[in-house]
Amino acid sequence: MTTVLRKPAEFRQVCDDARANSHRVGLVPTMGALHEGHFSLIDEAKKRADFIAATLFVNPLQFAPDEDLDRYPRTLESDLAGCSQRGVDVVFAPEPDSMYPAHFQTQVSVSELTKPLEGGFRPAHFDGVTTVVAKLFNLTGPCTAMFGRKDYQQWKILSRLAHDLDMPIEVVGCPIVRESDGLALSSRNRYLSASERERALSIVSGLRRAHDAWAEGDRSVETLRTLAAERVRAEFDAVDYVSVVDPDTLLTPAESANRLLIAVAAHLGTTRLIDNVVLGEDPRP
Amino acid sequence: MTTVLRKPAEFRQVCDDARANSHRVGLVPTMGALHEGHFSLIDEAKKRADFIAATLFVNPLQFAPDEDLDRYPRTLESDLAGCSQRGVDVVFAPEPDSMYPAHFQTQVSVSELTKPLEGGFRPAHFDGVTTVVAKLFNLTGPCTAMFGRKDYQQWKILSRLAHDLDMPIEVVGCPIVRESDGLALSSRNRYLSASERERALSIVSGLRRAHDAWAEGDRSVETLRTLAAERVRAEFDAVDYVSVVDPDTLLTPAESANRLLIAVAAHLGTTRLIDNVVLGEDPRP
Repeated sequence: MTTVLRKPAEFRQVCDDARANSHRVGLVPTMGALHEGHFSLIDEAKKRADFIAATLFVNPLQFAPDEDLDRYPRTLESDLAGCSQRGVDVVFAPEPDSMYPAHFQTQVSVSELTKPLEGGFRPAHFDGVTTVVAKLFNLTGPCTAMFGRKDYQQWKILSRLAHDLDMPIEVVGCPIVRESDGLALSSRNRYLSASERERALSIVSGLRRAHDAWAEGDRSVETLRTLAAERVRAEFDAVDYVSVVDPDTLLTPAESANRLLIAVAAHLGTTRLIDNVVLGEDPRP
Repeated sequence: MTTVLRKPAEFRQVCDDARANSHRVGLVPTMGALHEGHFSLIDEAKKRADFIAATLFVNPLQFAPDEDLDRYPRTLESDLAGCSQRGVDVVFAPEPDSMYPAHFQTQVSVSELTKPLEGGFRPAHFDGVTTVVAKLFNLTGPCTAMFGRKDYQQWKILSRLAHDLDMPIEVVGCPIVRESDGLALSSRNRYLSASERERALSIVSGLRRAHDAWAEGDRSVETLRTLAAERVRAEFDAVDYVSVVDPDTLLTPAESANRLLIAVAAHLGTTRLIDNVVLGEDPRP
């Protein structure tokens, strides 16, 4: 059975005890509403560690006032069942008050990597992410922490955070998990109507088009971008960005880059979806 | 003999090994130029821990461009001799490049507590302090960390930092150490000419005056402030502040407060000195 803990001090103790008993701790931080993407992180954690901690916390700090904090899906019971079934040893599901008690006033922020892509559209988002993840890292202690590459920029930022602050944390980015038709798994997919779900496929269709062009030797950043963007623009109600950037700096790529990140963020009705592929590295989406 | 380490990874390993051998680690972070104030932190650390790590690092992040980074005293050899004599087990003295390598871009900041007092005069200072101390805490791992109360606001901020970010660090504030005539020890005292050294005593004279008035029952914040400020204003070339605040929030104190912090920052020539006393708690300075 998976142990469920609500209090930060209890979670810290369990992780300390695991290490004292010579276990390697694998951490899977989530906002709950678990799907196969999250479960793939748990599976990967089990390859790299032998005591698996998952955290379920819808972090208010990373939502802007006009975003979907209140309606973000909370599915605690099925999340716990899933964690139990996948062999998670401990679930940490704190209340917001225990993570942010009165007088809380500390922020962790990463500068350059947070500015492009999502940074232009969710300006305070990553400060909320880096702050809560710093707390989760500190509570867990030395561990290997798994993040999904669907949130590619988040993964790069958290790798930077751990490195810059000398945290004893190995940050691992895991491949995007997709439905059989290519849609990237996301807790927000459940917001989509049937027709929106259909139109959402234009993202993966655009990414595939760019991936195919790359495979055939096309190296023009503008061409690759346009190939992806045309598909997304045709179906989505609003497009925040379809960007082609250096996969490490997230900035304008070098002329002869042998890897390119294409990242997309776009809206269908009130639902915002993101997806990406690294050309020259990832398999066809 | 005290071990001296330059590389962050080596320092982390030594601290990890000490804990693995059932030692409690005591941390004394400094900017070097050690004096009896620092040595008192080491002595206090030895009461609370049995493996003592001191860090010597003049942190460029916490100096503004017009401050004294370049001329800040560096006295590595005598610092090491002092650490050795006082029984420090390991000294960590990194180069700036190993603390802030290329692409470093993460900042840790505390909001409310950094705004009053020093915050009005050294606006980016505490962001530099909290960032480097977060790194030192993460490299050291679970420990008891000692800070001097001469930097009273810094001590409160770092306590907050460790608490807010759930760091496994016990932060301890240690009493100010003074010369026999009352001058608070500071690495910057060596900048003072003989006559400035004499005039500098007006700070402790002002603090004593307020302390005596408090002891005699005076509870007027404005009176206490004026008693201290008059002495400082008479001797110093410029006074940044003489403030009376709540010792915990650093904000305007309650009417019937039973503890008050009087904090002073003032300039003699190119030297800036700070000092403080907590009325209702500290002995007469």
